[in-house]
Amino acid sequence: MSYPLLETIDDPADLRELSVEQLSVIAVELRRFIIDIVATKEGHLGASLGVVELTLALHYAFSTPDDKLIWDVGHQAYGHKIITGRRDNFETNREFNGLSGFPKMQESVYDAFGTGHSSTSISAALGMAIASKIQGNTARHHIAVIGDASIASGMAFEALNHAGDSDANLLVILNDNAIGIDPSVGALKNYLTNVKTGSQRQENIFEALNFNYFGPVDGHDLEKLLEIFKTLKKIKGPKFLHVITTKGKGLKQAEADQVVYHAPGKFDALTGELKPKNTHPQPPKYQDVFGLTLVELAKKNKQIIGITPAMPTGSSLKYMMQQFPERAFDVGIAEQHAVTLSAGIAASGGVVFCAIYSTFLQRAYDQLIHDVALQKLPVIFCVDRAGLVGADGATHHGVFDLAYLRCIPNLIIFAPRNEASLRNIMYTAQLGLESPIAIRYPRGRGLELDWQNPFEQLELGKAEHLIKGSQLAILATGNFTETALQLAAVFKGNVSVYYFGFVKPLDFVMLKRVFKKYNTIITLEDGVQSGGFGSAIAEEAARQSYTGKLEIFGIPDQFIEQGTTEELQQALGLDFESLKENIQSLLD
Amino acid sequence: MSYPLLETIDDPADLRELSVEQLSVIAVELRRFIIDIVATKEGHLGASLGVVELTLALHYAFSTPDDKLIWDVGHQAYGHKIITGRRDNFETNREFNGLSGFPKMQESVYDAFGTGHSSTSISAALGMAIASKIQGNTARHHIAVIGDASIASGMAFEALNHAGDSDANLLVILNDNAIGIDPSVGALKNYLTNVKTGSQRQENIFEALNFNYFGPVDGHDLEKLLEIFKTLKKIKGPKFLHVITTKGKGLKQAEADQVVYHAPGKFDALTGELKPKNTHPQPPKYQDVFGLTLVELAKKNKQIIGITPAMPTGSSLKYMMQQFPERAFDVGIAEQHAVTLSAGIAASGGVVFCAIYSTFLQRAYDQLIHDVALQKLPVIFCVDRAGLVGADGATHHGVFDLAYLRCIPNLIIFAPRNEASLRNIMYTAQLGLESPIAIRYPRGRGLELDWQNPFEQLELGKAEHLIKGSQLAILATGNFTETALQLAAVFKGNVSVYYFGFVKPLDFVMLKRVFKKYNTIITLEDGVQSGGFGSAIAEEAARQSYTGKLEIFGIPDQFIEQGTTEELQQALGLDFESLKENIQSLLD
Repeated sequence: MSYPLLETIDDPADLRELSVEQLSVIAVELRRFIIDIVATKEGHLGASLGVVELTLALHYAFSTPDDKLIWDVGHQAYGHKIITGRRDNFETNREFNGLSGFPKMQESVYDAFGTGHSSTSISAALGMAIASKIQGNTARHHIAVIGDASIASGMAFEALNHAGDSDANLLVILNDNAIGIDPSVGALKNYLTNVKTGSQRQENIFEALNFNYFGPVDGHDLEKLLEIFKTLKKIKGPKFLHVITTKGKGLKQAEADQVVYHAPGKFDALTGELKPKNTHPQPPKYQDVFGLTLVELAKKNKQIIGITPAMPTGSSLKYMMQQFPERAFDVGIAEQHAVTLSAGIAASGGVVFCAIYSTFLQRAYDQLIHDVALQKLPVIFCVDRAGLVGADGATHHGVFDLAYLRCIPNLIIFAPRNEASLRNIMYTAQLGLESPIAIRYPRGRGLELDWQNPFEQLELGKAEHLIKGSQLAILATGNFTETALQLAAVFKGNVSVYYFGFVKPLDFVMLKRVFKKYNTIITLEDGVQSGGFGSAIAEEAARQSYTGKLEIFGIPDQFIEQGTTEELQQALGLDFESLKENIQSLLD
Repeated sequence: MSYPLLETIDDPADLRELSVEQLSVIAVELRRFIIDIVATKEGHLGASLGVVELTLALHYAFSTPDDKLIWDVGHQAYGHKIITGRRDNFETNREFNGLSGFPKMQESVYDAFGTGHSSTSISAALGMAIASKIQGNTARHHIAVIGDASIASGMAFEALNHAGDSDANLLVILNDNAIGIDPSVGALKNYLTNVKTGSQRQENIFEALNFNYFGPVDGHDLEKLLEIFKTLKKIKGPKFLHVITTKGKGLKQAEADQVVYHAPGKFDALTGELKPKNTHPQPPKYQDVFGLTLVELAKKNKQIIGITPAMPTGSSLKYMMQQFPERAFDVGIAEQHAVTLSAGIAASGGVVFCAIYSTFLQRAYDQLIHDVALQKLPVIFCVDRAGLVGADGATHHGVFDLAYLRCIPNLIIFAPRNEASLRNIMYTAQLGLESPIAIRYPRGRGLELDWQNPFEQLELGKAEHLIKGSQLAILATGNFTETALQLAAVFKGNVSVYYFGFVKPLDFVMLKRVFKKYNTIITLEDGVQSGGFGSAIAEEAARQSYTGKLEIFGIPDQFIEQGTTEELQQALGLDFESLKENIQSLLD
């Protein structure tokens, strides 16, 4: 494929030299370029296809990078990256040492603010507008582009509420395509549908919040967009533009199946057909172990209710939503609400599984402490994507959870080592607990083809001695337990493996034995060293006056970029070979 | 004072035996009772006075406790407590081992859900409504009473957005008095004013979110309230009632000065006059050291901007708001927005001080990680009310921050030991940092009458050896450093005191010396043991293969109830005497 006109665009300034007709040609080439690259390199497709015209119109009409442009979440920013000097290395998108899959300030002056998590753009743009005003710059424009799923998140409302009461030179663009990763939900979404169809003709919500409202406008009509931006540039204060787009625009299959083509994996760039997946039997994804096990349990336990904040597909709660639509709910990008809603359900005797990614649970930290743990409400948190998550990178690694959860009283924390362990803790939890539990498991696949073991009730707080060895003890939690077993196999007889599924409460009896027996102990976890599982062991070592050697292996105190899990583990010295060398030198 | 009719009410069932006329008498007596008790025992006054009629009408019309009633935040729930069996021990309100100042499930079946932090009530009530439906109970009512400041918080919007799209048997009551602790702010507040005055006559925001809207109604008119509840009880699905009340209703001064009479301290129950405060010269409150120092700095550094989420008075940012209204902002109960707004300001070169209570920073944990620390934006967080906070109790102690902050890369954490130390770190931070900083300081007063020392620049990450001693080293941070000094004075020559203002980065050089020199080390902090400052020392002890004794003193792994700081420290073994005994036995 060639993209003759697009190849002349190294910077939005080049774009501004073109006629509107030429801009339309760029739109065609840019869409093609995105499709061609994502077809082979994988990544987020639908969102960027939906904003090709909007991206071009924005950079054409506004003076980026002096005008500040922020893409909420950032899945849709591929076109933006390609026309802001990153076309030629765009094929490194989401790779180790490559471009980030999200806007990133370090990467380009055109990325005014890094994104990844949803609904931050209006706050950030408003902050910039406030700073500009104080710095005496009243001409600068500050633009937040936010989707209809993201604008329904509480944080976005907080920002709108503040901005509407200010004189900030702010333009909020609602990119309304009626879908996030899964279809949008909630009352606001229905309301927006009425606005779009014209059945809502009165002052609308955004006008009520004191924004100067424009639209709805067809987001694929370049000329209309340019015309409206011309008008908007002249208006001071908070402005709101409602743009209607189609996610996946320009690729038939992507328009037709927007959930799958959000991030479709490899596909045929011309036909759009998905490439056949590996059909070799593989162990299940952990998310599916969760999702399918929940259905199994929900069939028997009628009190079970499932909650997900906007991740029915990603968390696999969709299975329960399909089978028990009355008992499983997608509440939208609303982590805070999801957690306190779960607390309310538990307070009324419901057995609630709240499925949430580790990195997004950070959004509901206070609710977890204040509404759940303080009241000892037995909510069952299924914390997916814990540990390193791969290509999504620094914004999405779920590496902080053990540290930020461990300090919360009343909370049980469990990290399964395999599918059976996840199934058994889910089974155990729904039998009835006296306090909440966070079950954290990784992105990706488990270990066993034949994973649907009969359920077994686990004893709360019990660690397991898996392998006996004389010289060194590995205390492992979660998926690193498997690594520990492999390491023990190499150093047979010398290395002992203890599996601490329960990071809290710790098995102090077992620990006492370990401290007594070994002079060399290492801890292994898929989380940060500071404050995590190893840190808990260090605290207890101090308490028990352990005087031997204790080494904590985990994520060091730095943000970790994207890459495959293997690449990242290698870079951090957490791969099998590095750990083996470390153990060897400890044994020597 | 006597309250003859009120004294017959041991339970809302007694209330329901009365005529509406008698209910009006109860209203008078209940208001009097609240005033009389709070006048001498202190507590939150204005909010509860404002909802006397609403409280009575709700319990009269609905079948509590089977119908679920949730008071958002809970400042306004004194009347509720008094008529639900807690009249006779209400004088223990907010005291050690007494009644909680907030609704609390453990305390009464009438407290359907514990509150304290804002904006949780709609989520919790919706969760209960979902559970009721699944349990086959379609008659039960689920009621959330929420103020106009709290409903503007993002979490409440998330709940409304979900509820409006459900068939939940939910009644949201907006208690609109145009004030939270400080006057409400934001576009929604202005909008509500239009609704109240009738200038907004079209479909309103709540109807747009698919609620069946009723009101506005005078919240002090018992008969009207009862009439409308009669209607509302017959309507299924999500309902919204807009009630207009006056905060402080019935006490002239409280109506006139609603900010002061939110929690006025002692006052004359008959005249409402505030009791004269202690006029003996006292050290300043830490919040004022912050607030006044910020003004000092802002006069010279024109890039300084101040942000508070709804705590201008409590954080003392009000001083800067008065002097530099263009550069200091109350953004409402919107912690998530406040933090990312600050990130946006910092990204544009502003020097931003974000003043936020420790317990409320939990609300913006993800924003701190994802928007601030990941991008190394040098936001200066002034984290007030860190450590034990006293009478507000379990929902408000700021004891988790060191633990949940310490795992965040790029973040500097500092806990000043006195006023000078707070002033100097503020001065240092605004000179320019390359990463964000969290400065955490306690509720209450500092140590020095003469506290306005000339500024000194601090060296980042440097610990100080304050007192030399031969046998045992105390490593202290924050306000416990003063305790450490007092302890060292008792054991003179034997006990060494190291002040770690910087909890992160730790002074590893100093630590190395300490580990080398001492066989007995204790750490002291006003925060949780799990994952906090002492935990960081334990991790480093492991790294440096320290083999001596290390004991971590801090808050144990449990939620701490209310009481004076002294009472709580005593209960936890963190008071001077207990620590002295501990040190004595370590020295023996």
